[in-house]
Amino acid sequence: MTSGPIHRKAKDYRWEGVAVLPYKEDGRALFKAITRQVLFSDPAQQSELRYFEVAPGGYSTLERHEHTHNVLILRGGGHCLVGREVRALATNDLVAVPPLTWHQFRATGDEPLGFLCMVNTARDKPQLPTAEDVAELKKDPGIAAFLRG
Amino acid sequence: MTSGPIHRKAKDYRWEGVAVLPYKEDGRALFKAITRQVLFSDPAQQSELRYFEVAPGGYSTLERHEHTHNVLILRGGGHCLVGREVRALATNDLVAVPPLTWHQFRATGDEPLGFLCMVNTARDKPQLPTAEDVAELKKDPGIAAFLRG
Repeated sequence: MTSGPIHRKAKDYRWEGVAVLPYKEDGRALFKAITRQVLFSDPAQQSELRYFEVAPGGYSTLERHEHTHNVLILRGGGHCLVGREVRALATNDLVAVPPLTWHQFRATGDEPLGFLCMVNTARDKPQLPTAEDVAELKKDPGIAAFLRG
Repeated sequence: MTSGPIHRKAKDYRWEGVAVLPYKEDGRALFKAITRQVLFSDPAQQSELRYFEVAPGGYSTLERHEHTHNVLILRGGGHCLVGREVRALATNDLVAVPPLTWHQFRATGDEPLGFLCMVNTARDKPQLPTAEDVAELKKDPGIAAFLRG
């Protein structure tokens, strides 16, 4: 019936029996100081719940894809870019990343930025921006400042 | 592309534009002092993310169903019954409720128990226990104490 224990205790944003993994395996992607934990990957559901933690000064990959992200900030705060919008994020804030929308999360404060991310288990591979895509984004001074960190 | 805003700010476990709803509409079900907020119901995903908050002394319905629950404690602590196991819960703990397994969450401390619950959007209706089911559960002294609150 069950594919795992019913209860996993948390301690300091780590969970019993949950591996702390590299953020991603794709060596082409630019990212910094970020870990990944898969909290739920339930074969009875078509979505997974992951926890990502970004150390101060770190960031996720700037990317886009067909699948959506549904994010809740679990720890600390920071900033995100979604599409052409830069937002300041605080604990418990929600962020929805629509399909094929550039996005990045940055830990811009003094403490780690930790967030839950709900995602389809079966999903397309992320697309990375070309130099032209980045140049286009940086025409917006707010986005340029965000990308500088 | 997007069915809602990209960013919803949180304040005191309430979110911009997210309604605070009754826990459930089923008048037959026994529950106490609990609210429901649907944080993500994304048509591009087959699972939803809800936030339930139980006031001190309150509890969710004792029930079971074919669909699974994947829970993260977002606020406070309490106790849960899953199957025949009673567990003390602290903030950020994970709980997985397998199919057709009796379960209940109780806010046994002095502060609210708030939890995220990931669930299939298309799901079967909960089954309520018969008097015989409850009597069977109460043969276990630990479960009996849990159900007394």
